[in-house]
Amino acid sequence: MSEPSPGSRPTLEAVATRAGVSRATASRVVRGGAGVRAPLADKVRKAVEELGYVPNHAARSLVTRRTGAVAVIIAEPEIRIFSDPFFSQQIRGISKELTAHDTQLVLLLLEGPGDHDRIARYLAGGHVDGALAFSLHTDDPIPAIIQRAGMPTVYGGRPSRPTADRQTVSYVDADNRGGARAAVRYLSDLGRRRIAHIAGPLDQTSAIDRLDGYRDVLPDGDPALIAEGAFTAESGALAMAELLERCPDLDAVFAGNDLMASGALRVLKERGRGVPQEVALVGFDDVDAVAATTDPPLTTVQQDIEGQGRLMARLLLRGLDRERAGDGPGPASVITPTTLVRRASA
Amino acid sequence: MSEPSPGSRPTLEAVATRAGVSRATASRVVRGGAGVRAPLADKVRKAVEELGYVPNHAARSLVTRRTGAVAVIIAEPEIRIFSDPFFSQQIRGISKELTAHDTQLVLLLLEGPGDHDRIARYLAGGHVDGALAFSLHTDDPIPAIIQRAGMPTVYGGRPSRPTADRQTVSYVDADNRGGARAAVRYLSDLGRRRIAHIAGPLDQTSAIDRLDGYRDVLPDGDPALIAEGAFTAESGALAMAELLERCPDLDAVFAGNDLMASGALRVLKERGRGVPQEVALVGFDDVDAVAATTDPPLTTVQQDIEGQGRLMARLLLRGLDRERAGDGPGPASVITPTTLVRRASA
Repeated sequence: MSEPSPGSRPTLEAVATRAGVSRATASRVVRGGAGVRAPLADKVRKAVEELGYVPNHAARSLVTRRTGAVAVIIAEPEIRIFSDPFFSQQIRGISKELTAHDTQLVLLLLEGPGDHDRIARYLAGGHVDGALAFSLHTDDPIPAIIQRAGMPTVYGGRPSRPTADRQTVSYVDADNRGGARAAVRYLSDLGRRRIAHIAGPLDQTSAIDRLDGYRDVLPDGDPALIAEGAFTAESGALAMAELLERCPDLDAVFAGNDLMASGALRVLKERGRGVPQEVALVGFDDVDAVAATTDPPLTTVQQDIEGQGRLMARLLLRGLDRERAGDGPGPASVITPTTLVRRASA
Repeated sequence: MSEPSPGSRPTLEAVATRAGVSRATASRVVRGGAGVRAPLADKVRKAVEELGYVPNHAARSLVTRRTGAVAVIIAEPEIRIFSDPFFSQQIRGISKELTAHDTQLVLLLLEGPGDHDRIARYLAGGHVDGALAFSLHTDDPIPAIIQRAGMPTVYGGRPSRPTADRQTVSYVDADNRGGARAAVRYLSDLGRRRIAHIAGPLDQTSAIDRLDGYRDVLPDGDPALIAEGAFTAESGALAMAELLERCPDLDAVFAGNDLMASGALRVLKERGRGVPQEVALVGFDDVDAVAATTDPPLTTVQQDIEGQGRLMARLLLRGLDRERAGDGPGPASVITPTTLVRRASA
């Protein structure tokens, strides 16, 4: 396809001048004519035809195929995005990096699985140059939707299974398994013998990897010591109650994230179990406004959540540059380290 | 402008079939050709020319001028959007209403004032059909940016000054002045005689209206009893310290929002001032996770924040329908009622 030189395209300003109207009026006519009197609208339409004007977004898309915007898709209902500080910290990192490269962050919100068709239409509509997607679940339709839209993408967290385009899948993930091993080994070194695990939702690779790390250290552990939660405080409280019912002799808990640890802590206190004396508790993430502010504060596995967001954005911007240069996007995946942070809960 | 019948346009599938490649490959070539081997890419480009294919987003924009998406712009840095529950509650209402009408919510994040040009480019690029904007400040460039983009818009909160297009400005606002009057009258009826006010940022109409409501009840009040905050907990704490310094005899505080009230409460407790015995405290908003959970819980002026979000979205969707029907958008502004909710703080 030959591309006309950008300078040869008439601008909206030229249309407005020729029609003798303001730029705003010309814009309104080009967008459908609402609220513009018929004689004025006719003048603008005549100028559009005479000059061969093509509306800006179409022209820009055809010439450069760039919108200067990147979609962020979090595969969770909107209510979780705003209540889990993990997401805001990751978005903060992404936002800082995109802003530093004058790229607009477009957060696409979902209410539920019924909304995937709409996301697909928006992505296929060419309104963004690339996508960042995180918190995917097994069988999530989002990778396929993004792949059909054919745009460079970086995932937050390892996608749960190879896509057809495996060689082009890029992701940023924490060393979830290594971090979990460090947490459980620490509890074991403290002399704890009945170490329970509150796993995250096991349709997410981060939860699976953390459970695997727990099992690495305790290969012959009692399966009754494992309960599944959903990465929320409420689910952590429910799982803790279930574990205390099943294994009243437990003396430590490794929770799959800090929010679940905070819910577990609440239940332990309600039941009069001293933390850390009777039950030692370790979380995962070291998220803002949770880990350091519980009573007692949480020993937890720290990951650099904001840094991961920055890294995701950086990899995507690099992929977009490569695309512009005519190279393939080139897969690039990064595993970031985790560190055990000791506070009073264990 | 005459519009070709949609049926006459060749589809991407037709291009893929003619070129003998998958739809995904054809899409990738149309978007720039990254990652596609040259001979395949040439076949696709040939098919594009032979069929006269126009990429989908451009075609759709030219034919229907509809993207099925609505932008939400909050004129605050990203960090405040995620830390103030007011915003998530308003977004929740917007998201529910847009989802019910199969319309995609596109949240455009800003880091700071330097990002306005980028927002302007995105809006002018035709990637959304309309906009919802809230938390505007005096001299905010956002209304002018939206007006230049020429799209139906509904504001959350009364914009601070008339725009050139005043007759088309729609907004949803709470009865801030009436709510403030009710709060201050309540404190006065309790027998409080030195009622202070922590105002929100006075470059926002909501803060100005609440201050006006305070002055309606106390027209001859001591100006030393008024301090300005920034709608955050930290600013409320600072303002409270300043007021105690200046007016140690104060016996009540009306804070311009619940977050500032929570900061003020912390300082009052640190200084050993009993709430409500020595100092009665009233907030504004009744936001989730703050108003009912402070110790003591806050007496506050409740507004239906999620309902306001729904209403904004509903007004915008109506405006888009009118635009599609060729009518002017028609201004429609709604003031929602407020109610004083009594809890232990006053």
